[in-house]
Amino acid sequence: MMNKYVDMDTLKFVLYDVHNLEDLLKRERFEEHDKESLDLFLESTKDFADKELYPYLKEMDEQPAYHKEGKVYVHEQVKTMMHKGGELGIISASFDYEDGGMQIPLVAHTAASYILDAANNHLPGYAGLTQGAAELIIHFANEKLKETYVPDMLTGQWGGTMCLTEPQAGSSLSDIVTKAKRTEEGFYKISGQKIFISGGDNQFTENIIHLVLARIDGAPKGTKGISLFVVPKNRPKADGSLTPNDVTTVADFQKLGQRGYCTTHLGFGDADDCQGWLVGEENQGLNYMFLMMNAARIAVGRGGSAIASAAYYASLQYANERPQGRKLSSDGKKNMEDNQNLIIEHPDVRRMLLLQKAVVEGSMSLVHLATKYYDLELTATSDQEKNKYNTLLEMIIPVVKTYPSEAGIYAVNNGLQVLGGYGFCSDFILQQYYRDIRINAIYEGTTGIQSQDLLGRKITMGNGSGLQMLLTEITIAIQEAKKHQELIPYASILEEKIQLTQKVLQELMPHAMKGDFERYLADASIFMEFFSLIIVGWTWLEMGTKAHEGLNNNNAKYSNEFYIGKIETLKYFYAYELPKTLGHAEILLNPSTVTIKKELEYIN
Amino acid sequence: MMNKYVDMDTLKFVLYDVHNLEDLLKRERFEEHDKESLDLFLESTKDFADKELYPYLKEMDEQPAYHKEGKVYVHEQVKTMMHKGGELGIISASFDYEDGGMQIPLVAHTAASYILDAANNHLPGYAGLTQGAAELIIHFANEKLKETYVPDMLTGQWGGTMCLTEPQAGSSLSDIVTKAKRTEEGFYKISGQKIFISGGDNQFTENIIHLVLARIDGAPKGTKGISLFVVPKNRPKADGSLTPNDVTTVADFQKLGQRGYCTTHLGFGDADDCQGWLVGEENQGLNYMFLMMNAARIAVGRGGSAIASAAYYASLQYANERPQGRKLSSDGKKNMEDNQNLIIEHPDVRRMLLLQKAVVEGSMSLVHLATKYYDLELTATSDQEKNKYNTLLEMIIPVVKTYPSEAGIYAVNNGLQVLGGYGFCSDFILQQYYRDIRINAIYEGTTGIQSQDLLGRKITMGNGSGLQMLLTEITIAIQEAKKHQELIPYASILEEKIQLTQKVLQELMPHAMKGDFERYLADASIFMEFFSLIIVGWTWLEMGTKAHEGLNNNNAKYSNEFYIGKIETLKYFYAYELPKTLGHAEILLNPSTVTIKKELEYIN
Repeated sequence: MMNKYVDMDTLKFVLYDVHNLEDLLKRERFEEHDKESLDLFLESTKDFADKELYPYLKEMDEQPAYHKEGKVYVHEQVKTMMHKGGELGIISASFDYEDGGMQIPLVAHTAASYILDAANNHLPGYAGLTQGAAELIIHFANEKLKETYVPDMLTGQWGGTMCLTEPQAGSSLSDIVTKAKRTEEGFYKISGQKIFISGGDNQFTENIIHLVLARIDGAPKGTKGISLFVVPKNRPKADGSLTPNDVTTVADFQKLGQRGYCTTHLGFGDADDCQGWLVGEENQGLNYMFLMMNAARIAVGRGGSAIASAAYYASLQYANERPQGRKLSSDGKKNMEDNQNLIIEHPDVRRMLLLQKAVVEGSMSLVHLATKYYDLELTATSDQEKNKYNTLLEMIIPVVKTYPSEAGIYAVNNGLQVLGGYGFCSDFILQQYYRDIRINAIYEGTTGIQSQDLLGRKITMGNGSGLQMLLTEITIAIQEAKKHQELIPYASILEEKIQLTQKVLQELMPHAMKGDFERYLADASIFMEFFSLIIVGWTWLEMGTKAHEGLNNNNAKYSNEFYIGKIETLKYFYAYELPKTLGHAEILLNPSTVTIKKELEYIN
Repeated sequence: MMNKYVDMDTLKFVLYDVHNLEDLLKRERFEEHDKESLDLFLESTKDFADKELYPYLKEMDEQPAYHKEGKVYVHEQVKTMMHKGGELGIISASFDYEDGGMQIPLVAHTAASYILDAANNHLPGYAGLTQGAAELIIHFANEKLKETYVPDMLTGQWGGTMCLTEPQAGSSLSDIVTKAKRTEEGFYKISGQKIFISGGDNQFTENIIHLVLARIDGAPKGTKGISLFVVPKNRPKADGSLTPNDVTTVADFQKLGQRGYCTTHLGFGDADDCQGWLVGEENQGLNYMFLMMNAARIAVGRGGSAIASAAYYASLQYANERPQGRKLSSDGKKNMEDNQNLIIEHPDVRRMLLLQKAVVEGSMSLVHLATKYYDLELTATSDQEKNKYNTLLEMIIPVVKTYPSEAGIYAVNNGLQVLGGYGFCSDFILQQYYRDIRINAIYEGTTGIQSQDLLGRKITMGNGSGLQMLLTEITIAIQEAKKHQELIPYASILEEKIQLTQKVLQELMPHAMKGDFERYLADASIFMEFFSLIIVGWTWLEMGTKAHEGLNNNNAKYSNEFYIGKIETLKYFYAYELPKTLGHAEILLNPSTVTIKKELEYIN
């Protein structure tokens, strides 16, 4: 039986009602699309996910990718994901027509990817990284490289990866040592080791195009000396045939989760015959890579939300089917003549379900907000508008990456708990989601790193003008919500939280201004938790407003249950999640120096 | 290489300095023991754990227990655990001399079990359940049953289990249907199915003694009609030989973690030849079982704390060895000429380490406090004293079970995060601890059930006199702490938290008094989070006081680093963990009814 893993109505509500996708479709870039054609794209993606992704989820966990004699072997559905997914447009849908794309809004493409992630999170990454790598080549590489590599990547015949991490450097990209040596033939000779390369090898795609960060001889130290290269697994010869390019698959990391999505260790140039082609200009690699990293960060957030979605519906189904226990009557006793209650009737179970629903749908809306900003930036008609949406996107990216990942772990943890002992058993899927989602808080910059980015770069961006721009958007949503009597209390709470944010920043800022960045950033992760909840409180207020409009509309698209479910979940979020900001504010307003190393080591 | 998994100094500090074990040893029951003999017991346990438990941790995960042709096969170390552990006194140490025990304080026995849990959490349960089952027989069964079963259980030749859960009933013990039919021979014929039976079968112990809850024909419905039976896997014949007792091993559940600790499905009486012997009186089964359940709940808390301990030291070791990134200088830049810092120098990593240390040592102290209360009750010289310690123990049991389990998950999650991508890889042990510890919030009554027990039974016990007794103990600790200038701020915070607790209960109580138990208990899990933090804040204040005394003592047992580590961790707990109670109080003081089911189903 096909179990539910995503609610298509909620996804469409987020796209069309909350984020006004139809307004976006009026822009010139999207003029050939309408709601019907996008719905068709989403429905065919759902059909593909139902048939080709969801049924293999458990199997891919139980038969993980493995390394043998210099190759990585992955589950056969990787082939289907790449080839059939490529045909469907999963890789290229949002690209320009002239680059082989369908020029659909990224926000709609993201909705499609969300469906795939929710169906089977072990598969979409193969296509997603190919999409990202192709995007980098399209944006920054010369025509020759574009012509040589992009077409086969968009059809999924060839895969793509991003190769950043090295064993000695981890997240510290300034310490990258992979070398690129100029040659007279125009290419560079690449040598070095890269680890944690997702989708780094497989037996199905004929070629894999690695986008590799490396240092050209004589380049400056640190991040300023990093260049970006196209390094194919096999290099195309003039006749179109392929010859090995001295890229070695050293190992495949065995993991806690996402075991079907291979994580490889790659060696470049062991035989001094690995050729790489410079993308754009020398020493600009990290700037280019950020295009892909922003997209990858949104994708990680999307995946976190989507896995939590699948876990939510699995636990909801259990709660709707499992009888256990009885309610206490007013004398504090149970009547054994009564039938057992379904566990969904117990408040504590309902709390764990609403918690999941709040995280899933709140983060679903957040992820799509980010890609809407991307589309609005892309189609902006003035520099000011472009700058506005670019700024809004940059502001929320660390939250978009982090909240769905961290709160996703929290949601899935509660989903597992709903099943009691069965949640811990391999026969039930919750334990797999619990393992799979754990990586999202690590991928593409850990939560700690995202938090440093949020507080260290984004909040201070343009002397706080980016934050101001974001707060203006939130204030507009508050005003909208206040038009609905029932929502006024929640709008007012969010207003207070914005004031609290400003108070917290007034406490923190002097450290930055004094140049004491260690103090300023010491509690960045706490600030992330604080700020994320407020941002998601905003997405819930928007959803509540749209749900209220739906309830008041005689021709509403969805049922009363649907809209009331949204409003009740908004209430849950404001009653149970947002109050946590009080604890965060207490920490941030009364900063401790206990985490800052002193002379004597007291962590022992 | 042997990696550190528990800090023996901290364990002894908790026993001797925080919980004054030497005072307890002055009591008559323990007069044959002294600090030296108990230290020897702990050291020999540590040696046993180093040699026979820790080295097999990973292997037991990778080669889980399995079911084949009606039998469960477990790792060979289970044999060593039972037999050598039995010899060492792991099963019987705290029992009376006359019952074959060593009559050591339970608090010391618990410290020994803590070491074993930290070394390899897949093994001690086999011995622990045998201990619990033997204890039930000793306390409540007749001499004949005692003589027949107990001696071989204490040596680990025979195992023991507790059989409560049934497929249709789960945690709802009132719905147990396993039958016991009186016979004229004195035994009962048992028939039914039990699931989730830990240690339910293995190929090494010659016999397994199941303590089974069942219903005698004609017994009242609900919990009032449950009786307790000794049901051996093999029944001893008059000549001492064993014959199968119609107990079938139906299956072994495959699980997320603790894969070496088998979880079985047992069938009783499929061939109508399963004999059981009544323990004590008819229909008193649940009352008897609670003796074992309280001990089991403490053991689950102990295990949570111990797994978190092992995870803490694994992540601490990594943080002390892994260089990555550089600190920002006052111009906000990094100097690439500097060496990379060890990650333990980064405040965010230090925060994640202190968080673990705070959870591990705070819950270690809490678990030993519970067993100290047990010992004080057991050796009380007046009814009043007995009642006092019984009450204090009952008050904290749900917290002792829950906090180390839930906060243990949180701690191990942070330990995994310290390792970044490596934390997700199977080559590192953190991912196993992350899986193993997840069961502790489910075992022996889920967190939801413990929370109902805390708020529904314990807080209201004796019209609140139990709570008053507990608050008196906390107030004494506050007064002690106030003697140290540096601790006054923390003592004052804890005072405020006690006032906040009373305010919260004033809000909640009217619902209970009106008989609206659904409302009263709807947020019991939030109350548990709130109350647990305050209880653990108390344990930290006590540890801080003792550490301060150590620092001021010229002949102190431990180094300054050791004591300062305790005080800094106290500061961490008060700066980062205790403020969460503000969020909880906000929830509890502004109760939402969103989790209480209304007519229209809005969770969809």
